[in-house]
Amino acid sequence: MNGEPLVILLVEDNLDHAELILRCFEENRISNRVLHVTDGEAALNYLYGVEQFANRSEHPLPNLILLDLRLPKIDGLQVLLKIKQHERLKHIPVVVLSSSESEKDMIAAYDSYVNSYVIKPLDYERFISLMKELNFYWIGWNKVPY
Amino acid sequence: MNGEPLVILLVEDNLDHAELILRCFEENRISNRVLHVTDGEAALNYLYGVEQFANRSEHPLPNLILLDLRLPKIDGLQVLLKIKQHERLKHIPVVVLSSSESEKDMIAAYDSYVNSYVIKPLDYERFISLMKELNFYWIGWNKVPY
Repeated sequence: MNGEPLVILLVEDNLDHAELILRCFEENRISNRVLHVTDGEAALNYLYGVEQFANRSEHPLPNLILLDLRLPKIDGLQVLLKIKQHERLKHIPVVVLSSSESEKDMIAAYDSYVNSYVIKPLDYERFISLMKELNFYWIGWNKVPY
Repeated sequence: MNGEPLVILLVEDNLDHAELILRCFEENRISNRVLHVTDGEAALNYLYGVEQFANRSEHPLPNLILLDLRLPKIDGLQVLLKIKQHERLKHIPVVVLSSSESEKDMIAAYDSYVNSYVIKPLDYERFISLMKELNFYWIGWNKVPY
């Protein structure tokens, strides 16, 4: 990874959640670069490097994807499926950040090979704590091939 | 999960590493139950509930699998592939604990839908630290459907 900042793609339509997540990541690991899109179509356009995201040096493939499930245009499970069916994109860890504790959603996500599924805590302190742990584990410990 | 202890299946042929991992998990979360097998064939027998593991109440399906890559009899990548091709077993997170930083191994693991890939640190303190973080993230934050 040549010491370049690690890139995280955040796919989140709830702007309050997105702001909170971006703030946590900035505070905890300034070398990360978090890119934020707000719907499933933009997430796939970004990952495929098409439309406004065609320039890969400006819009590099991420090292980690944080994916909400309930998204406008194309929902999170569809985005996950497309990622995990793609020869190159499947190597990028996808963590679903969901408000849903529904067993059905969890099964669907694991059926589509989600890397990890976490529930967004309602409590502010726990939300911050989750983001720290998540950053620490996925950026600090987990390894990706590129 | 009904408040039952979470079950971790540790597949590790290096007995020094296994002992260290078991000790870390015991110290950090006494309610976990860590089951240890030392080769890939035993891991699959355990997961399929056959041979000496036929009694599911004694040998419950795990909530997390920690998998070494270099294993006797059936290697870790084959075990991973079998897990992720199985309708029920694919829902169990598999964390590869590897000594290998080889890009080829990482790609093969992500191609077979590993949930996470971590390198065993050579340094003792970092090894302990990884086990704590891993336990905290996968048992504390990550959700599985059952």
